[in-house]
Amino acid sequence: MKESPLFWPAYLKGNVLFVLDETALPEKFYYIKVKNTNEAVKVIRDMKTRAFGQLLVVLNTFLLELNNVGAIHELPLQHKLEKIATTLNASRPTFPFAEVTGMVVGWGAQAMSKGEDIKATIERNIHGYLQAIRARRLDRVRRISEVIKDGQKVLTHCNVSGELAMAAQLCQEQNKRVSFYATETRPYFQGSKLTCWELKRAGADVTLVADNAVGSLLAKRMVDLVIVGSDRSCANGDIANKIGTYQIAVLAKEFEIPMYALTQPSNKIPTGKDIPIELRDADELLKSTGKSIAPKGTKGFYPGFDVVSHDLIKQPIAIDVR
Amino acid sequence: MKESPLFWPAYLKGNVLFVLDETALPEKFYYIKVKNTNEAVKVIRDMKTRAFGQLLVVLNTFLLELNNVGAIHELPLQHKLEKIATTLNASRPTFPFAEVTGMVVGWGAQAMSKGEDIKATIERNIHGYLQAIRARRLDRVRRISEVIKDGQKVLTHCNVSGELAMAAQLCQEQNKRVSFYATETRPYFQGSKLTCWELKRAGADVTLVADNAVGSLLAKRMVDLVIVGSDRSCANGDIANKIGTYQIAVLAKEFEIPMYALTQPSNKIPTGKDIPIELRDADELLKSTGKSIAPKGTKGFYPGFDVVSHDLIKQPIAIDVR
Repeated sequence: MKESPLFWPAYLKGNVLFVLDETALPEKFYYIKVKNTNEAVKVIRDMKTRAFGQLLVVLNTFLLELNNVGAIHELPLQHKLEKIATTLNASRPTFPFAEVTGMVVGWGAQAMSKGEDIKATIERNIHGYLQAIRARRLDRVRRISEVIKDGQKVLTHCNVSGELAMAAQLCQEQNKRVSFYATETRPYFQGSKLTCWELKRAGADVTLVADNAVGSLLAKRMVDLVIVGSDRSCANGDIANKIGTYQIAVLAKEFEIPMYALTQPSNKIPTGKDIPIELRDADELLKSTGKSIAPKGTKGFYPGFDVVSHDLIKQPIAIDVR
Repeated sequence: MKESPLFWPAYLKGNVLFVLDETALPEKFYYIKVKNTNEAVKVIRDMKTRAFGQLLVVLNTFLLELNNVGAIHELPLQHKLEKIATTLNASRPTFPFAEVTGMVVGWGAQAMSKGEDIKATIERNIHGYLQAIRARRLDRVRRISEVIKDGQKVLTHCNVSGELAMAAQLCQEQNKRVSFYATETRPYFQGSKLTCWELKRAGADVTLVADNAVGSLLAKRMVDLVIVGSDRSCANGDIANKIGTYQIAVLAKEFEIPMYALTQPSNKIPTGKDIPIELRDADELLKSTGKSIAPKGTKGFYPGFDVVSHDLIKQPIAIDVR
C-alpha cells in the first residue's frame, strides 16, 4: 500500500519542511518549502494545508527551528520554544494549536528541570509522537478496508485525508471490487478537488455527485455504506464534521444505509451540543472558483460544520491519537 | 405588485421578441432580440431561457413569423406553420415542444377548414392562451402569499420563475415580515443567480445556503416552511423537480416542516415512477463557473431532477394551465 500524499501532507527533509499545497490540487501537485516559523505561519494562515496537515506543520516547525540550534541553551532555548509556540498559536485564532504547542513547551521545561538535553528530548518526543499517530492511522486504514465488503459502493463527504484512498488500495490488494461516490462538498469542493483526486490516484473507481444528489443516490440503493471523517468527537459518541455530514446521516438513517465515522475519541467535550459551530464568512459561499455567483449584497449562511448525533452513526472507526 | 422579470421572461414588442438572458444574471440584466424562428431556436438551444420562458419563446415565434404575413394564405400559410413547428421541435430533442406547437398548427388547420382567417385565429388564440396562463399564475402568486404567515422563514430550492418573489412582495404589502433561504442549487447555481437576485429585487430578505446546509437549517428550526416548484406533476400527486428537491422533502418530513409544491396538475403521467430521469452530461458537474474543479477523467453522476412522492408534500399549490 502506497501512502496518499494527503495522508501525510508535510514532511521534513534536512532543513526544509515540505508542505503539500492542497489549494492547488487537482491542477497542480507540489510542495511549499517552509524554512522557519514565519513561513510556517504563512502556510497555515493561507490555509495551504488543513486539519492534520496543520498539526504536522506546527510540530515540524519546532524541529526546523531546533535544527539551527547547536548545544543545550537551557533557559534561552526554552524561551525560544515559548516564542515559537506563541507565534504559531496566533496564526489561526479559532484553531486549538495551543494544546499541541503547550505539550512541546512542556517537554522542554521538563527536560530543563531534569538537566536533560532540551533539543534532543523535544526531537525524540516529536518523532515518537508522530510515529505513534502514523501507526494508529495505518491501523485505522486497515479497519476501514475491513468494513468495506466485496462489490460495495461507498459514499463519502469532504475529504478524510488519505485514509479512504489507502483503504481503497487495500481493498484492491484483497481483490475486492469497490466503488466510491464523492460529494462535491460546497463551497470548497474538497470532494471534487481532493477526494476524487486521491481516489483516482489510488486506482479506485470514483464518481462525483453534487451535494444535492445524495437523497436520490441513497433512495435508489446506489450506495451500500457511508464513510465520513470527523473534526471533533464527543464523550457520548457525537461528532462534528464538515457541513453536510449531518443531512447525509439523517438520509442514511431514513434509507437504512449504515454510516461509519472516522473518529479520534475524546472525553473533553461531553456532547455535540457543547461544540460551538464556526460561522464562516458568507463571501466564501457567494463565490465559486473566485467568481461571484450571487448578486452583490446577498447574505449567506455558512456554518463550517455540523454535528451528527451518535445514534445516527453505526460504528465509529476510532483511533486514539492523543 | 410588480412583476418579476423571471415571471414573464419573454415578450413581443412590434416585430421583435425580447428574451431575458437568464444565463447572464445576476451580473448583467438584458434581453436578447429575437426576430425569426432561427434566432428563436438559438436562444432555446443555448438555454438562454428555461421552462416557462421556452414556452413563451415557442408561442411568440409563431406571432413573430405571422407578423411578416399579409393576408390569409390558406395552405401555404398552414405549411409555413408546420415548418416553424418542426424547426422549433428539433431545437431540444428531450423537450416536449411538440405538444404546444401541435396545438398551434391544429388551430391553423381548424381555421382553414372553417374558411376563417388563419393568421387572426392563431394570434387571438395564442394571446388568449397566454393571458389565461398569466391570470392563473397571478392567482397562484396570491395563494402562495396566503400560505406564508407573518414572521415565517421560507426555504426554497432552484428557482420558481418569479412567483415566489412576487408572493414576497404581496406579503410585504400585507405587512407580513417574511424571510427566505435559497439553496445554491448546484451545478447551475439557479438559487444563487436567479432566486437571490429576484427576491432581493423584490425587496425581500434572502439568505443563501449551500445545498449541504439544509439539514442543519431545518434541525435548528431556522425554517418554518419549504416552497418549491415542479417540472412535472403526476396524476397521484407525485412531482419531479430540480435535483435536490427530494432530499429536502425527506429532511422536511423528518423535522415536521411543511413542504409546498407549485404544480400544474396533469393526468398524463400516473406516478413519479413513470417519469424518466434525464441524466445530464457529467461535465456540467466537473466544472464550476467555467473552471474545471475535478481531476481530468473523473466520472460524474448528474441526474437533472428527482421525484418527490406526494406523501412528502403537504399541499400542492396548483394551477391548471393546460
